Amino acid sequence: MKKTLMAAGLTATLAGAPAVAQTVDVFPSGHTPTITGNGQNFSGHVAIDLLTPSSVQTPSSSGLVTFAPGARTAWHTHPAGQMLIVTAGTGWVRQEGQDRRVIKPGDVVWIPAGVKHWHGATESNGMSHFAITYIQDGKNADWLELVTDEDYRAQ
Amino acid sequence: MKKTLMAAGLTATLAGAPAVAQTVDVFPSGHTPTITGNGQNFSGHVAIDLLTPSSVQTPSSSGLVTFAPGARTAWHTHPAGQMLIVTAGTGWVRQEGQDRRVIKPGDVVWIPAGVKHWHGATESNGMSHFAITYIQDGKNADWLELVTDEDYRAQ
Repeated sequence: MKKTLMAAGLTATLAGAPAVAQTVDVFPSGHTPTITGNGQNFSGHVAIDLLTPSSVQTPSSSGLVTFAPGARTAWHTHPAGQMLIVTAGTGWVRQEGQDRRVIKPGDVVWIPAGVKHWHGATESNGMSHFAITYIQDGKNADWLELVTDEDYRAQ
Repeated sequence: MKKTLMAAGLTATLAGAPAVAQTVDVFPSGHTPTITGNGQNFSGHVAIDLLTPSSVQTPSSSGLVTFAPGARTAWHTHPAGQMLIVTAGTGWVRQEGQDRRVIKPGDVVWIPAGVKHWHGATESNGMSHFAITYIQDGKNADWLELVTDEDYRAQ
């Protein structure tokens, strides 16, 4: 039983009740199957690799997100903000009411809490970014309407 | 004056008092000079590139940290935990009382709050990782003693 709990990342307390182990974890690439972005929150093909398993409690949800050409998030806001670290390709980010901006590898995007925006690949090229999405009261995003083709192409 | 405030990333309110602008920011690589890790908290040569300027308030302090061969942090803990994303080279991470572990590109390390540990390059190879260090009550780390050569080499 103790072994099972330990294998599950838990330890037994003296009283026998399981408690979350406070141990440093190393998660290799591929520890969790890739998730495909759902059609309510994304347009086009979007692949999401979680950086830590969902069973591990962290102050942000974090993933590597890969957008096929033309793919993008829906419009959305974050209750505690989001940081993007672009790792590959060429993409676009747009804040409502502002010009679309090109993002490339090495760029870091800071999206403050409550700012309506979308991000994704350009029409011709894919794009990957790490997304560090800070959690507030158990929530990391408020999803809104999909980005229409017209809005996506508007410069 | 308005232009100066806007250039500084601030906007003027109707009353004329400056307020932090809620805008999406894109920070290109090299926006801030590289910092060299100080000798109280690091052994050997450590270069830190902040992902966002220190003037921007985010729920974590985030940087790309590059350790020369043999370089490492001091022993330390984090009040709200830390996530490392290894991007290059080969490194070691060690939790007090546990075996040293090898980390390589693609590995993600989760260090829970309050766990005493160190991380750095191996003796023969450099290592780079993104470090997402969550802030609690204005603090992101409690620094302890330097890692002795003996402790560093112990497997």
